[in-house]
Amino acid sequence: MAYLNDNYLKLKAGYLFPEIARRVKAFCDANPEAAQRVIRCGIGDVTEPLPPAVLAALHKAVDDMGRRETFRGYGPEQGHEFLRHAIAENDFRSKGLEVADDEIFVSDGSKCDCGNILDILGHQNRLGITDPVYPVYVDTNVMAGHTGEANEAGAYEGIHYLRCCAENAFVPEVPLAKLDVVYLCFPNNPTGATATREQLTAWVDYARANQTLILFDAAYEAYISDPAVPHSIYEIPGARECAIEFRSFSKNGGFTGTRCAFTVVPKSLLARTATGELKPLHPLWNRRMSTKFNGVSYIVQRGAEALYSPEGKEQVRELITHYMGNAAILRDAAHAAGFPVFGGVNAPYIWVGTPGGISSWQMFDRMLTEANVVITPGSGFGSNGEGYFRISAFNSRANAEEVARRILEIRW
Amino acid sequence: MAYLNDNYLKLKAGYLFPEIARRVKAFCDANPEAAQRVIRCGIGDVTEPLPPAVLAALHKAVDDMGRRETFRGYGPEQGHEFLRHAIAENDFRSKGLEVADDEIFVSDGSKCDCGNILDILGHQNRLGITDPVYPVYVDTNVMAGHTGEANEAGAYEGIHYLRCCAENAFVPEVPLAKLDVVYLCFPNNPTGATATREQLTAWVDYARANQTLILFDAAYEAYISDPAVPHSIYEIPGARECAIEFRSFSKNGGFTGTRCAFTVVPKSLLARTATGELKPLHPLWNRRMSTKFNGVSYIVQRGAEALYSPEGKEQVRELITHYMGNAAILRDAAHAAGFPVFGGVNAPYIWVGTPGGISSWQMFDRMLTEANVVITPGSGFGSNGEGYFRISAFNSRANAEEVARRILEIRW
Repeated sequence: MAYLNDNYLKLKAGYLFPEIARRVKAFCDANPEAAQRVIRCGIGDVTEPLPPAVLAALHKAVDDMGRRETFRGYGPEQGHEFLRHAIAENDFRSKGLEVADDEIFVSDGSKCDCGNILDILGHQNRLGITDPVYPVYVDTNVMAGHTGEANEAGAYEGIHYLRCCAENAFVPEVPLAKLDVVYLCFPNNPTGATATREQLTAWVDYARANQTLILFDAAYEAYISDPAVPHSIYEIPGARECAIEFRSFSKNGGFTGTRCAFTVVPKSLLARTATGELKPLHPLWNRRMSTKFNGVSYIVQRGAEALYSPEGKEQVRELITHYMGNAAILRDAAHAAGFPVFGGVNAPYIWVGTPGGISSWQMFDRMLTEANVVITPGSGFGSNGEGYFRISAFNSRANAEEVARRILEIRW
Repeated sequence: MAYLNDNYLKLKAGYLFPEIARRVKAFCDANPEAAQRVIRCGIGDVTEPLPPAVLAALHKAVDDMGRRETFRGYGPEQGHEFLRHAIAENDFRSKGLEVADDEIFVSDGSKCDCGNILDILGHQNRLGITDPVYPVYVDTNVMAGHTGEANEAGAYEGIHYLRCCAENAFVPEVPLAKLDVVYLCFPNNPTGATATREQLTAWVDYARANQTLILFDAAYEAYISDPAVPHSIYEIPGARECAIEFRSFSKNGGFTGTRCAFTVVPKSLLARTATGELKPLHPLWNRRMSTKFNGVSYIVQRGAEALYSPEGKEQVRELITHYMGNAAILRDAAHAAGFPVFGGVNAPYIWVGTPGGISSWQMFDRMLTEANVVITPGSGFGSNGEGYFRISAFNSRANAEEVARRILEIRW
């Protein structure tokens, strides 16, 4: 009989978002009237329509698929040239960063890329993962057999947790331990923290000194307004020798339901074989993508390309301005309510300390039952998230204002 | 320093299709005039536009994404309900086969699913793979570390090769060995062979007796015209206890560049843990998809749904009729040229013996230089493919007729 992958059995059964969904459903079923008032600020999902430039490009691409002369079958697994070029040119080279078109790999999502990157890495790597953290980094390593069992606090054996807390402004210090693979995400999900150029330089220097691979998740870079905050790890000298960067169109173009993202794998990035020989990772990722993937829908790639047109760029700026306007409103409300507030300045997430020392889940329940607002309990992102909750700024302006009002109405 | 996955280094450098592309480019560069005449019957890629019903649904879905009220963000990772239901109802339940909506997992491609399924399987499984074979089954197992090194003939240690040849009409016999995981693909790529109900019953009986998992690739089921040939492994009693089925919209709806497919994982399908405990695979696949995937583009899923409308079904039938008309023309030509001919009746591939005992690559070169036609050398699919070549029926009618003419013009 076929064997299953036993590592899956190590995963905690109650993944964060299903548990949230369960509690919201139970509340709504029991309180049909309050259910009408519920506003969701939980999952980081965009709410505004796709930009007009994208819609026009999508319609045109659908028309292309309807004529024999312009019909597209299998595209390159790595992405169409037109999109790889637009990305490398606009997101990197025009900003003075050296990234070649063929170092861009277009995919259907950063979540997929963050998980799939493990395909090309060995099982021996010592892992560094922040706490709190986007759960996918941890879970995909558990599934791949890179960890032992979880302890009672939910921490897995074999992961070196990098503590993020108010004292370090949720940016982990470079550790004394020599780690082989480290996940960094800035602007951060869930804390909304950003790393300064100095902090990222310390990480790149650490990585180069220890020959560490940095997996840099920059899915939220479009939300950075402070000109001093780096948008890409490649702004740091030496990063092309130690970092892979994940980017997404989900949060800038509103592509969460349209699906397109990309990963940058510099050709100068090396890793070692079991016998210590150094080899570039680029051909491995290229092989991975050409063997286990068939490219993103042509239609969707044309839509993503339109985000780089002058109108597309302007429309993305408007979307960001909209969501960051919400963030300011929510941040101000949380502050006025007397909560410790982090993030929400260069990121669409506001990370808030719970009042009176209550737990994250207690706060979740109070927000749900008293304010009829769904937030995300910080402890769902790791044990250092306990005592915090995350508010997402992805909403209509009216909803953001209403949530702010409700936060201020309650006597915490 | 980060370790890479050493298993990638076991892969043969020259993957089939890049080598074909290299030879075609070299020929075209050296012979610019002949280059104008080149007709590609190599890669199994569709050539005809998307059906009008799909185009209309895609345009409507793009419009949905442009209005706040109908905009869709993250969908269920497993696929939207509307599509899972349409698939289960039309492809299975309406044909008397028991498949629930939530046993359908919508994905962006069968190639991805065939590779990703290994995520949930253990490393201990004894593998059975046909020879010749779609190379992805082999390569993904090599990459996952389920094999040893390849020998000089390209056969990997640790794979039990199931011989397919003219004597068994390219349908492998059930082996004496007890295998844990077996890949079957009918209608077959590359040979165009189909398995009878009796042959599939023998495989299901074998699987149940040995507790084997069958990975059944039915990407080409739409090309079956013989009413006696099963379209799904689930037509065989007991298959829900031993088989996962992969299906695709690439070859029926022409979605190779649009990207949508699905996998059926019955809830009754069990596998064992390392300690021998039996557990269902369905929750593991569900967890895999929700952790490492974010669903297929809403727009594309609406397009796929339209294939199940009355007009969509009729338009798919027209596409199949078109390609199978090509297959008949190419099959007849190869037969008239005196070649041994297989497939091309219930499948869009014609599998042809080379003349005069020349090798597959020699035939590739002759077809390219003398007929200016690109075919696929059989040996690229495995050592038993030596002495054969594959002609794809995915083309315009004019091209199929021209290829037939050229085959008959040459003195083989």
